[in-house]
Amino acid sequence: MTEETAEKTETAIEKPEATTEKKDENTVFVGKKGVMGYVLAVVTQFNNGADSVVLKARGKLISRAVDVAEIVRNRFLMDVQVKDILIKTEELASEDGSMSKVSAIEISLTK
Amino acid sequence: MTEETAEKTETAIEKPEATTEKKDENTVFVGKKGVMGYVLAVVTQFNNGADSVVLKARGKLISRAVDVAEIVRNRFLMDVQVKDILIKTEELASEDGSMSKVSAIEISLTK
Repeated sequence: MTEETAEKTETAIEKPEATTEKKDENTVFVGKKGVMGYVLAVVTQFNNGADSVVLKARGKLISRAVDVAEIVRNRFLMDVQVKDILIKTEELASEDGSMSKVSAIEISLTK
Repeated sequence: MTEETAEKTETAIEKPEATTEKKDENTVFVGKKGVMGYVLAVVTQFNNGADSVVLKARGKLISRAVDVAEIVRNRFLMDVQVKDILIKTEELASEDGSMSKVSAIEISLTK
């Protein structure tokens, strides 16, 4: 049960991103996990003294980012406001080398 | 061929809405149909003289509304800009009478 072989093979792409991203601004990338995990991440950053937190998401996960923003300010931190919302198109390189376009959102929350 | 019976029975729900909606603002509700249908609706409204069009969507369809906005301004009407984006929480009555909350977005596009 506790053997290391039980761990999934790490892709080594995800983890370093999360730490380097923090130095300039507090960013939460919304991915495929449950909504409440991202809500907790945002609330934690505000409680650790952040004045603003930026939620970022791409493609179908855009609606989840909106859910996270709405739950944070309606249920947890009523003094948090949406400062700005940006939408844009990003180009992603897929595995076969071709480029595909995907919509993205950035929701800036401030206290 | 030219007989009136060849016409489809009008639902009488859709058409009046579309015209009354236009008097205050040009709104396109993004639903479950293909993205390009909504793109066409927005482009048509601008080409018919509208100065602004508001895209509205709820829940998982929020990301589709962002796609529509991005495709309109990147591929069809380069002079169209995102004026404002609002996110909010709406309460919906489900069939059993209980209320459920859903995130919603309003993307205002202007020429």
